[in-house]
Amino acid sequence: MMANAATLVGYAAGTLTTIAFLPQVLHVWQRKRADDLHLGTLLIFTVGIVLWLAYGLWLRLLPVILPNAVTLALQCAILYLKLRYRGRD
Amino acid sequence: MMANAATLVGYAAGTLTTIAFLPQVLHVWQRKRADDLHLGTLLIFTVGIVLWLAYGLWLRLLPVILPNAVTLALQCAILYLKLRYRGRD
Repeated sequence: MMANAATLVGYAAGTLTTIAFLPQVLHVWQRKRADDLHLGTLLIFTVGIVLWLAYGLWLRLLPVILPNAVTLALQCAILYLKLRYRGRD
Repeated sequence: MMANAATLVGYAAGTLTTIAFLPQVLHVWQRKRADDLHLGTLLIFTVGIVLWLAYGLWLRLLPVILPNAVTLALQCAILYLKLRYRGRD
């Protein structure tokens, strides 16, 4: 019972830390600006997410694989837009 | 052996997705600008990290607690700076 409730909290956490990046993608895409986003942060975070995904695939942990796969796609979108709109200041 | 190597990948992942936000804090702090960062993203991500921390504390998982405690501090710093420099465009 305790573990089940904790698992629900874990799923809620994974859902929030994943969908959080969707409005950021739209924000950059609509405003065509990403100067305030640090390129190093995006790169390091993306590599970290790739490692989380590898960890999840390695241990076959679906609750780790799913949110990190979505987060990776959203981070790649932000990274692409960051590079595309770079230096428009 | 396999599990140990996977654990190392997990620690590397947690370290990267945590320290990634340090240059973002400095970037906003130095430039006094955060308009390109979406407020909703910061808020949703921060709530998600609070839930990850609760999940880690609940199940007493130190590898979950430590990075999320640091990430929470860094996110709070970004959120504070975002609100402080809001609308300076």
